[in-house]
Amino acid sequence: MKFNPRNYLIWHPCTQMKDHEEYPLIKIVKGEGVYLYDDKGNRYIDAISSWWVNILGHSNERLNEALKRQVDRLEHVIFANFVHEPALKLTDKLLRIAPKGLSKVFFADNGSSAIEVAMKMSFGYFKNKGKIKNKFVYLDCGYHGETLGALSVCGEELYSQMYKEIMIENIKVKGPDCFRCPFGKTRENCNVECFSFMEEALVRNKDTISAVLIEPIVNCAGGFKIYPPIYLKKLRDLTQELDIHLIADEIAVGFGRTGKMFACEHAGITPDFMCLSKGLTGGYMPLSVVLTNDEIYDTFYGDYVSLKAFLHSHSYTGNPLGCALASEVLDIFEEDDLLNKNRSKQDRLKNRVIEKFSNYKYCGEVRSIGFITAVELVKDKITKEPFNWKERLGFKIYRNALKKGALLRNLGDVIYFMPPYVITKKQIDELVNIAFDSVVEVLGE
Amino acid sequence: MKFNPRNYLIWHPCTQMKDHEEYPLIKIVKGEGVYLYDDKGNRYIDAISSWWVNILGHSNERLNEALKRQVDRLEHVIFANFVHEPALKLTDKLLRIAPKGLSKVFFADNGSSAIEVAMKMSFGYFKNKGKIKNKFVYLDCGYHGETLGALSVCGEELYSQMYKEIMIENIKVKGPDCFRCPFGKTRENCNVECFSFMEEALVRNKDTISAVLIEPIVNCAGGFKIYPPIYLKKLRDLTQELDIHLIADEIAVGFGRTGKMFACEHAGITPDFMCLSKGLTGGYMPLSVVLTNDEIYDTFYGDYVSLKAFLHSHSYTGNPLGCALASEVLDIFEEDDLLNKNRSKQDRLKNRVIEKFSNYKYCGEVRSIGFITAVELVKDKITKEPFNWKERLGFKIYRNALKKGALLRNLGDVIYFMPPYVITKKQIDELVNIAFDSVVEVLGE
Repeated sequence: MKFNPRNYLIWHPCTQMKDHEEYPLIKIVKGEGVYLYDDKGNRYIDAISSWWVNILGHSNERLNEALKRQVDRLEHVIFANFVHEPALKLTDKLLRIAPKGLSKVFFADNGSSAIEVAMKMSFGYFKNKGKIKNKFVYLDCGYHGETLGALSVCGEELYSQMYKEIMIENIKVKGPDCFRCPFGKTRENCNVECFSFMEEALVRNKDTISAVLIEPIVNCAGGFKIYPPIYLKKLRDLTQELDIHLIADEIAVGFGRTGKMFACEHAGITPDFMCLSKGLTGGYMPLSVVLTNDEIYDTFYGDYVSLKAFLHSHSYTGNPLGCALASEVLDIFEEDDLLNKNRSKQDRLKNRVIEKFSNYKYCGEVRSIGFITAVELVKDKITKEPFNWKERLGFKIYRNALKKGALLRNLGDVIYFMPPYVITKKQIDELVNIAFDSVVEVLGE
Repeated sequence: MKFNPRNYLIWHPCTQMKDHEEYPLIKIVKGEGVYLYDDKGNRYIDAISSWWVNILGHSNERLNEALKRQVDRLEHVIFANFVHEPALKLTDKLLRIAPKGLSKVFFADNGSSAIEVAMKMSFGYFKNKGKIKNKFVYLDCGYHGETLGALSVCGEELYSQMYKEIMIENIKVKGPDCFRCPFGKTRENCNVECFSFMEEALVRNKDTISAVLIEPIVNCAGGFKIYPPIYLKKLRDLTQELDIHLIADEIAVGFGRTGKMFACEHAGITPDFMCLSKGLTGGYMPLSVVLTNDEIYDTFYGDYVSLKAFLHSHSYTGNPLGCALASEVLDIFEEDDLLNKNRSKQDRLKNRVIEKFSNYKYCGEVRSIGFITAVELVKDKITKEPFNWKERLGFKIYRNALKKGALLRNLGDVIYFMPPYVITKKQIDELVNIAFDSVVEVLGE
């Protein structure tokens, strides 16, 4: 039977709706821990934390209670000239765990908005000081959201190419690609030779560059490309030397995903702006924050008539419901010693994937850090030649895994595991088995 | 005692933080109906619905229960290839009440993102049909959000001027200004002569214009400028004739604020895109939607390899918590016959403000539609000369009203009333009295 998605009333995100002629939408009726349940009685391990947001499991009892408590007190209030306890608590907690030097918190609603806030603050900082620096630098494998400002620093052309005529042009730099290193190095003998692309771009354009945007340690939407911390350290040093801001996009990698609370910690750096969202509310609802420092804040500080204030607001900025959830998430991290507890699970995931996949003839690379493990499938293990993207093999594997009980949304031919931290070792084993079986059924033994 | 807001940890939105040297932030601990309560035991009538979002009162029992019910079932799930009951229900309800012809619902998180979605869809529609139309038209008194795409169509220079070097340039048109009509007309003898500015811009640039963005009937952030429905009707006719999209930004004016469910209804038009947010969740949490039609949807529909799909996603797109709240809001509208019930309250508000203000020597105009009533204060009633903005008289009135128990955030020297619909007639009287007393204390008898 064929469905007709032309008749669907909902236009789904990041989806070619015609795909649903073959596959009906799956209707989820319940979430519990790592599991999602559909209306047909099927159960799925949410291996991607529902777009990387759910870190503490679906229907987490503590988070449910925190939300219920807050809604009975105060669901929302305008955040200009007003404040409330959930925002104050969350701010204190965030600044306690943030890289040293970050001292101010600005609230927004989603990741894209946080990126745009950081870009506007960076540009405004220089303008308030009398300098016009109107360019932003980004990596060819970077992704920072899809509103037009965020999209203008999105290296992944799949998302940005279509809209280039309605975006400002920024400066794209070839980013680290350790699996297909253009210098022929391996992770073992690398000296981040690829940083030369960045160095060249920054030095040449230093007078017009306001900020560099980067996902610390892992370019997620760009195919889970993991790169060495020294790249980040060099970038921080050079941007400081050249009076360029560093915007760390920790939206996907923050909150323990890479094994540390924030991925910047791998390099021991403090960015000028740190954007957080996704896991911030434990995967419950939209909320984002931009952390920055006193120096930047001070350039916007002055008499009202100077018109230097940072005018950027969303109606729900500082929403008490989101703040109460986020505050509870940070309590859980601390009380449950979550970063430490995650370690043996992360090892189990990584090791199981290596055991299953590394000798598989279409496995190009298994790469892993913290609670991210990814497998890049290739046509040829030696030459690393990719499959023809038009075959959509990753998508077929994803569809296959759904039938077997796992939500393993592919990124092209990269299959990745980014489960909620509440996953058990037994569930990890089950998940990796499903993934491998799904791959083999599509690509062959 | 002076505070030092340099030491505050939270950077508040749309705020010159230095203002707080004089006025400490007000900490809200509870909301109930039209009232907000602070930690000092003070009570404030929330006359602006906390940035125009709260339509059904703070801590609304039905909404609290709807949220609690939903969080026990499913807090969130990825919305690509998956769906859930709250989104399906909400979609059905929205399309039942939307202007005829709107047939698809796309979800986003906040107003700015909804605007950017509509802009991208409009541009993408023409591009998928082989035409590059890379310009958007907006009014000089229009406001559509503050991410860089939305900001590029923001006529209010207070918000946009600072960032012009990092935005694409769009086409600004002089919008209707019935209080200071450039044609010397009044609301009584107007033939929307001012539409000529729009007509001229559209005809001259028709080949490059993708869409016109407009707030139907009321330019809210632009000073609550209310304009006649015929302007909208003419705009719809001309855009259709010239193959230009019309994006109706109903973020502030939707959900009964102008007396009809959607402000477009005053003109009996159907836009190509209708953006909704703010009141959508009853003022509880961020959620937004873009309604559009089959013709636009169909141009993005095709085989995956055509790469025509609309790739725009936010992590929390279609969030079940927000959808459950929004669905409950629409039930309340229907079950309580809210649009009808609001009428006598709206009249009371308008009449009380006219009684109090219209003969006041600094009252330039009282303007009103539905549950919006605004007073523009001027230095000279005859010449309509405004006060010097640097005196910040509106801000002083706002500060004054807070002391008397009303949150009446000014827009320059425009004082406006946009309360939650649960306000009683007695509370309306109290509010208008506080407002008038606050004005007189600042400006004199």
